[in-house]
Amino acid sequence: MSDYVFHFGGHAPVRTVEAGVPFSVFTEDCFSGKLTSTDGEPRIVAPYPRVNPLTGPIALTGIKAGEILAVHLIELKPARNWGVATISPNFGLLSGNRGNPNLQAEQAERVWIWKLEEDGKSLSTPTLSGPPLSVPFRPFHGTVGVAPAHGEVRLSVVPGDFGGNLDLPMLGGGTTLYLKANVDGADLYIGDGHFVQGDGEIAGTAIEGALDTTLVLDRLPADALMDWPRIETDAEIGVIGAARPLEDAARIASAGLIRWVADACGLDLFDAQQLVTQICRLKIGNLVNPLFTVACTVPKALLPAGAEFMGGAHARLRAGG
Amino acid sequence: MSDYVFHFGGHAPVRTVEAGVPFSVFTEDCFSGKLTSTDGEPRIVAPYPRVNPLTGPIALTGIKAGEILAVHLIELKPARNWGVATISPNFGLLSGNRGNPNLQAEQAERVWIWKLEEDGKSLSTPTLSGPPLSVPFRPFHGTVGVAPAHGEVRLSVVPGDFGGNLDLPMLGGGTTLYLKANVDGADLYIGDGHFVQGDGEIAGTAIEGALDTTLVLDRLPADALMDWPRIETDAEIGVIGAARPLEDAARIASAGLIRWVADACGLDLFDAQQLVTQICRLKIGNLVNPLFTVACTVPKALLPAGAEFMGGAHARLRAGG
Amino acid sequence: MSDYVFHFGGHAPVRTVEAGVPFSVFTEDCFSGKLTSTDGEPRIVAPYPRVNPLTGPIALTGIKAGEILAVHLIELKPARNWGVATISPNFGLLSGNRGNPNLQAEQAERVWIWKLEEDGKSLSTPTLSGPPLSVPFRPFHGTVGVAPAHGEVRLSVVPGDFGGNLDLPMLGGGTTLYLKANVDGADLYIGDGHFVQGDGEIAGTAIEGALDTTLVLDRLPADALMDWPRIETDAEIGVIGAARPLEDAARIASAGLIRWVADACGLDLFDAQQLVTQICRLKIGNLVNPLFTVACTVPKALLPAGAEFMGGAHARLRAGG
Amino acid sequence: MSDYVFHFGGHAPVRTVEAGVPFSVFTEDCFSGKLTSTDGEPRIVAPYPRVNPLTGPIALTGIKAGEILAVHLIELKPARNWGVATISPNFGLLSGNRGNPNLQAEQAERVWIWKLEEDGKSLSTPTLSGPPLSVPFRPFHGTVGVAPAHGEVRLSVVPGDFGGNLDLPMLGGGTTLYLKANVDGADLYIGDGHFVQGDGEIAGTAIEGALDTTLVLDRLPADALMDWPRIETDAEIGVIGAARPLEDAARIASAGLIRWVADACGLDLFDAQQLVTQICRLKIGNLVNPLFTVACTVPKALLPAGAEFMGGAHARLRAGG
Repeated sequence: MSDYVFHFGGHAPVRTVEAGVPFSVFTEDCFSGKLTSTDGEPRIVAPYPRVNPLTGPIALTGIKAGEILAVHLIELKPARNWGVATISPNFGLLSGNRGNPNLQAEQAERVWIWKLEEDGKSLSTPTLSGPPLSVPFRPFHGTVGVAPAHGEVRLSVVPGDFGGNLDLPMLGGGTTLYLKANVDGADLYIGDGHFVQGDGEIAGTAIEGALDTTLVLDRLPADALMDWPRIETDAEIGVIGAARPLEDAARIASAGLIRWVADACGLDLFDAQQLVTQICRLKIGNLVNPLFTVACTVPKALLPAGAEFMGGAHARLRAGG
Repeated sequence: MSDYVFHFGGHAPVRTVEAGVPFSVFTEDCFSGKLTSTDGEPRIVAPYPRVNPLTGPIALTGIKAGEILAVHLIELKPARNWGVATISPNFGLLSGNRGNPNLQAEQAERVWIWKLEEDGKSLSTPTLSGPPLSVPFRPFHGTVGVAPAHGEVRLSVVPGDFGGNLDLPMLGGGTTLYLKANVDGADLYIGDGHFVQGDGEIAGTAIEGALDTTLVLDRLPADALMDWPRIETDAEIGVIGAARPLEDAARIASAGLIRWVADACGLDLFDAQQLVTQICRLKIGNLVNPLFTVACTVPKALLPAGAEFMGGAHARLRAGG
Repeated sequence: MSDYVFHFGGHAPVRTVEAGVPFSVFTEDCFSGKLTSTDGEPRIVAPYPRVNPLTGPIALTGIKAGEILAVHLIELKPARNWGVATISPNFGLLSGNRGNPNLQAEQAERVWIWKLEEDGKSLSTPTLSGPPLSVPFRPFHGTVGVAPAHGEVRLSVVPGDFGGNLDLPMLGGGTTLYLKANVDGADLYIGDGHFVQGDGEIAGTAIEGALDTTLVLDRLPADALMDWPRIETDAEIGVIGAARPLEDAARIASAGLIRWVADACGLDLFDAQQLVTQICRLKIGNLVNPLFTVACTVPKALLPAGAEFMGGAHARLRAGG
Repeated sequence: MSDYVFHFGGHAPVRTVEAGVPFSVFTEDCFSGKLTSTDGEPRIVAPYPRVNPLTGPIALTGIKAGEILAVHLIELKPARNWGVATISPNFGLLSGNRGNPNLQAEQAERVWIWKLEEDGKSLSTPTLSGPPLSVPFRPFHGTVGVAPAHGEVRLSVVPGDFGGNLDLPMLGGGTTLYLKANVDGADLYIGDGHFVQGDGEIAGTAIEGALDTTLVLDRLPADALMDWPRIETDAEIGVIGAARPLEDAARIASAGLIRWVADACGLDLFDAQQLVTQICRLKIGNLVNPLFTVACTVPKALLPAGAEFMGGAHARLRAGG
């Protein structure tokens, strides 16, 4: 696939895949690969809203609107040996921005080029002010989503109940994301490779990099309890909320997880809330997108024995991949 | 010490300790040890605001207002073999409450008694609706604070720049908390033992339990950059923010940490923001207290070599303990 | 026009009008006129998202993307002699809802039919619990918007920088709303007649009623300072923000108004901020839609003499209407 | 009274008054009268937290903790013919600040001296950048509160359920504020005269001025439904909420008013919510204090006939004044 789109929704699929059959995609970085030096100008090479190009949409054969799309990420490989990060005026958690303006002078712009070390385990960059920096390489997709519900068309920078620009570091290799299909075929969009990112994506970008990703999709039955994305790894299950203020995203995620745990474990909402309260993690994705994101997760090992999640889809996909 | 207080500030010290000399305290659970069965009535045995009894205040010899108090927690031992947790009407993240009311019917009240297993590694409880629950024992102090600035007197359930009811699971054995002394002697208050708690303390209580805790204090010079609590473990440094909405607590914590990293590592604010953005964790403490709490942390191993934090106080106290 | 749409964006215009030429539209109520008795079931007669039908889109001849559309409401007449209001489970400021969930029992549903009195000045309804209620008739359009920027398609219940479901009681007869055209023709959508509404639309609906409205459009040059909707009456100018949390909507609206006042009155941002701080009103539209809305307004009579707003469009349209 | 205090709570009364007997107080401006020219330096003449000096506490004879204190403001006269306003670094809705920090350059500081015109109806100031400004004189007290509940001591800049630094323009002559007494005598504090202020006190200060105020107190029976301040004028009743984010203050205020209207008018919560939804105003006080404030009000003329509020205290005090 050589073309990219900048919206969720409104496109005919560019590719159709079969359930259970792994396939590969190339995804561009959020600047479409055009920001290549510290002298580069992000807002000129990738003017808003031509940021965050997405690969897709990819249709899954047979899935009907209302059913659940399972997206299992098998492996994420860097497609280039460098990534890029920026700080920009009028953007980021610690700057006034379009959704939270102020009257102070805008902060300046700066660009970092991070090189992937030969061992593929870390990234490093010089700094203008002091010693060079080095961080681990922990790739994930910032953006994985489907065509939104009810015919909405959203920019690729937006997260929501359709997934989208979640920016959750959990979304790396070995993870399964569950999204409700809003149209027949589900229409999956994927992109926004992050070579590493801390919680909240505070400055506004991760280390943005192109990825060659192998993934596999599956089709699961409709689930009346699932109205926000779910996520599963070998160790954890979780529910993702997207909202502002941040506590509302946490409310969505934790209430959704409590209902899921109650259902899967045969507990009432009080006992499920008690369990989740004592063992959950609240993992903040981004604090800079149009909506903030949080995943509320619990370790599967601490849930009552015998609980099954999503019909065992994660284990099945993990084995098949 | 046999008595407890329910405020930060306004008391003469009940004990004075010397810097670097470990000492022990007993702390009651948040219900003053009076909620002992699933038939108990939390609001009768511990009516608001007679909740969250604190041990202290404990004065540190020689520390002056404006200097930094280092509180290093050496070891937390359960003082009883059970803890207690509740869900109550008009309290918790997923219920209307005094700060966020609604007009729905109030949720009912329920109490769980969690037994500490003989191996001391986990806690278990029966449920009313299904299988019993089991969770790990990971004790910490929900509440560690000093007399507030400017003569304020706050209830023991409140967090703030004086520390207080932070409910951060990081605050267990091996952790150092740095608090600005607002009065000579600093006047430390400690309590609110939690046998385990997930992020956010969603239902409103952790597994609340009495603790026998050994700790050691130290006196550090004033630090003009430090206006919110700092925290340090062997692996991480962090800054704690307390605010509503939750994103404002994240702003306080991350801006404070970026300034600290810049200062300690010889970076400007742009390079420090870049580094923190890619490697930080945002650890949510509580989402139910008068202010929400977040710690923004980074691994020390990923900071430039040679950086020193708080004059090496943590390592010194850790070795001495 | 007999058909309605449920989105902003994505439609060919159903009508084209000329600048300065008044025209009339009929707009349905938010339940498409189907909720006609207190026994009616809102979620059956108007299932989400088939709520809030809009009339349009209406193209303005000659307006180009980037220019400003002036929408001057000349007169709003009730198209029926009754309106309808509801309280529903999982909706409203004082109930858990999709963006702010809880685990309490859902509130029940209730419907009120409000009759317009013969003098056309007030509305009344019986109650189930006590005396009948009577309120003034002060009609406005809850929803006035254009096709969103950058090709987005949004549900008719959403407000934003394209206008939309603002639910601001200012939007009645005699008011001019300024919206940036994102497409050639601007593509205006209008609907959601409210016979009266308090600030915040707390329960989730106003007194919803069909309207026969006369309005007139105009085309104004692009304005680089205007990135959110502006509003003008004979007495006031204002800027509208849409965001969550509510303080961010207030930041958008007040920062936008300060920049406008500075520009129109020849003041720097400090002096303009000083003036606006002492005389502004913050008028809350809704607290129940996907984004909350606020208009920050100032009385024109308190601005320095000689200031002109939007090239005098409001006065011109008012005279012409 | 010649002395001032900077806290709510923790003081012996400096004066005791009798119910129903008018008396006068002088209140300083928030800078203690020390900021007298545009060259003045606010943070030097009135360093935090020595801002917002309060007159009091004033005890009411006979009132017991748990009863209601009615504070009826009879008349507010300017004690000087000038007021002062500022914009400061790290303060205000449109600047990063201690509770909502950023990493941008701090805004500069500026001071305006506003002169009261001889007719006493307006204030004017020159500007640095353009024409002079003129605004109406509409005096009120930004701060009216009692000793907080449960022994807390709060700085004079804080609002809460004890009243305090509300910054609500309603609090002028002819208004009655109802506050729950938390201690015998109630211990009233008053100050922070504002010669005029827009909604939200956006820049961080109103036009701050010293006042000579005549007021009268009364003692009302305990009211189990009243857990936040109530307010009454000849035309309106309202409930005041203080919280962050701003929507939570609106939730407190509107839920409280709905419960009050239901009780006073013989309506159930549904019918009362319906009525309030269609006729309420949400009046924003401040958006810059530690908690934001909102009053939710309804016109008494639109409530069912025969409803009585607070036993008729307002009318009684108004007549007596």
